[in-house]
Amino acid sequence: MWRCRIIRRRVRSARAPSQLSATVPTPPLSANPSPLTYEQSGVNYDLIDPLKIAAQRAAAATAVHLQTHGFAEVPASRGESAYVVDVGPFYLASIVECLGSKALVADEMQRLTGRSGYEGIAQDTIAMAVNDLITVGATPLVVQAYWAAGGSDWFSDAQRAQALVQGWKHACDQCGVAWGGGETPALAGIVEANRIDLAASCTGIVNPKSRLSVGDRLEAGNVIVFLASSGIHANGLSLARKLVDRLPNGYLTPLEDGTAYGEALLAPTVLYSPVSEALAREGILPRYCVNVTGHGWRKLLRHPGSYTYRVHTVPPVPPVLRFIQRWADLDDHEAYSTLNMGAGFAYFVAPDEAQRTVETAC
Amino acid sequence: MWRCRIIRRRVRSARAPSQLSATVPTPPLSANPSPLTYEQSGVNYDLIDPLKIAAQRAAAATAVHLQTHGFAEVPASRGESAYVVDVGPFYLASIVECLGSKALVADEMQRLTGRSGYEGIAQDTIAMAVNDLITVGATPLVVQAYWAAGGSDWFSDAQRAQALVQGWKHACDQCGVAWGGGETPALAGIVEANRIDLAASCTGIVNPKSRLSVGDRLEAGNVIVFLASSGIHANGLSLARKLVDRLPNGYLTPLEDGTAYGEALLAPTVLYSPVSEALAREGILPRYCVNVTGHGWRKLLRHPGSYTYRVHTVPPVPPVLRFIQRWADLDDHEAYSTLNMGAGFAYFVAPDEAQRTVETAC
Repeated sequence: MWRCRIIRRRVRSARAPSQLSATVPTPPLSANPSPLTYEQSGVNYDLIDPLKIAAQRAAAATAVHLQTHGFAEVPASRGESAYVVDVGPFYLASIVECLGSKALVADEMQRLTGRSGYEGIAQDTIAMAVNDLITVGATPLVVQAYWAAGGSDWFSDAQRAQALVQGWKHACDQCGVAWGGGETPALAGIVEANRIDLAASCTGIVNPKSRLSVGDRLEAGNVIVFLASSGIHANGLSLARKLVDRLPNGYLTPLEDGTAYGEALLAPTVLYSPVSEALAREGILPRYCVNVTGHGWRKLLRHPGSYTYRVHTVPPVPPVLRFIQRWADLDDHEAYSTLNMGAGFAYFVAPDEAQRTVETAC
Repeated sequence: MWRCRIIRRRVRSARAPSQLSATVPTPPLSANPSPLTYEQSGVNYDLIDPLKIAAQRAAAATAVHLQTHGFAEVPASRGESAYVVDVGPFYLASIVECLGSKALVADEMQRLTGRSGYEGIAQDTIAMAVNDLITVGATPLVVQAYWAAGGSDWFSDAQRAQALVQGWKHACDQCGVAWGGGETPALAGIVEANRIDLAASCTGIVNPKSRLSVGDRLEAGNVIVFLASSGIHANGLSLARKLVDRLPNGYLTPLEDGTAYGEALLAPTVLYSPVSEALAREGILPRYCVNVTGHGWRKLLRHPGSYTYRVHTVPPVPPVLRFIQRWADLDDHEAYSTLNMGAGFAYFVAPDEAQRTVETAC
């Protein structure tokens, strides 16, 4: 069951409607009144971005090699979430994605409660790859696991290791993908002791080719349909972890509904590929798709066209994200620029298909 | 130009011919006379293998999902170096591979000499994926980069970052693959400060389908052709790094030819896909392929069939591997069970195609 909201776009703005701020009280005890933004949490994109730009340019120059095999890239996919190659009868899409730092929350919660959260962590990792791959209209076919541990010792916690395996399989089952294999290196000296660096690669095909979604069909008047998130998913975790220092009982601080903060953070990322496949079966071809991950709602604006976007109905904000916004003292602009705020994925569809999109997804 | 050796297989043995030991003198000053094996160097497969087996079983159970898309896995590829799916007009092959710990050598050599070895490190990382992918007969089409740094700071060394980008592009150019994109997370708390965890995913196709090489065509009487390695490649580095403690001048200790040990270790892994493509153009279909990586020559025995293997001519051992064998005091059995000892890749071909294979590769 997917909660959905239909939202018309008109005004280009990453700022959420002001009425939302009414639901955001200040924290009961505020020892640190200054806002805690994502940049303060330790990730400095100013250092990374020059490398990214150089890499993107170098990568673009390699596309010519596909011609020697009789194929060609889909140039518009270079700016999108997955890379697409025209191999004749269909398009081939591929991606590699990192979990990020969410496993650190699972490690700390295991220390505090004894329960391993790695079943959900596995799903998060696969979601990072699969939810990106489907934005181009691809059906995910094969997932590969990348589990780089800080040493062989990581694997000696059999319960945790089995949770990772079972969660990985369960996520593959949900997405209808084959788990092809993977890599489980022990990287002492590179990965920290008793930590694990998790990533997933995913390969899929766009078939029939008419399912390709790289933004060229986006038009003024299209409608944005959001799919609900389950919580923070796997983006904004640096901020969420940093926030723990401000909380009266750390990860065990309860949300309004009584759930511990750390437990709420570990709600696994929703896998959206079943919805994309259902839409395809119904003959609904999204004009554009956005996986709402890092940079929160700014992702909605990533299409290179000059459009304005109007969001007239925002989805309910998951309790854990309301909690973060309140305790980190983020205004709506900062919160919606960093976190998914309840919108995990967005389909941009033709106006006459909006209602059917919602019905198919629900 | 590829140095090649034709080797007939008969006797199943990981032990190299004894005449080789004549070229291996003892180290001039041996303060640590006991052998330094790979297991002593810190990787304990006994801890990792149970997880691997559980993961392999769980992964195998997901293959059924491909049927819902009208496709099927190639079951024999489950035990091989890349996973293969029959998607109709051709086979789809995919893989994700880790560099391992070789970047630690580059970091130390940069500290000692000021020169960044990351151009070669990039090639090593791509080689780990591409050289595995081609074993199933696939033409690599797309590579994705996974560069997980210990923090944003890693990217502030512009020279090193540019070397990584340029080396990555150069390796893609050599293999004729498109660099599709990738992921450059900053993972403070998971990856060690000022370190980077490097991996590559690769997607390719087996086209025409007759190029599929998963071992079902291997027969008694086939001939093994080795392609020369450039040195240690990217396997056995835990041992190679551990060995530094025994050397009179650490990474700067010279080999017989005067090259510093650390510099020799950084010789980039040979990319073998141009040879595989050349063989395909010549109509030569290997019966089986082995990428000689971890576990050294034991990899030659990985085919599930009960064969005996006779190696009657061994390739020249690169100076850096002779040096390691001598200083680590490894007998031939241990050395050939751990390192590539000059054989980076092996094609198993029909006897009447052996000579043509050598000529095409050279």
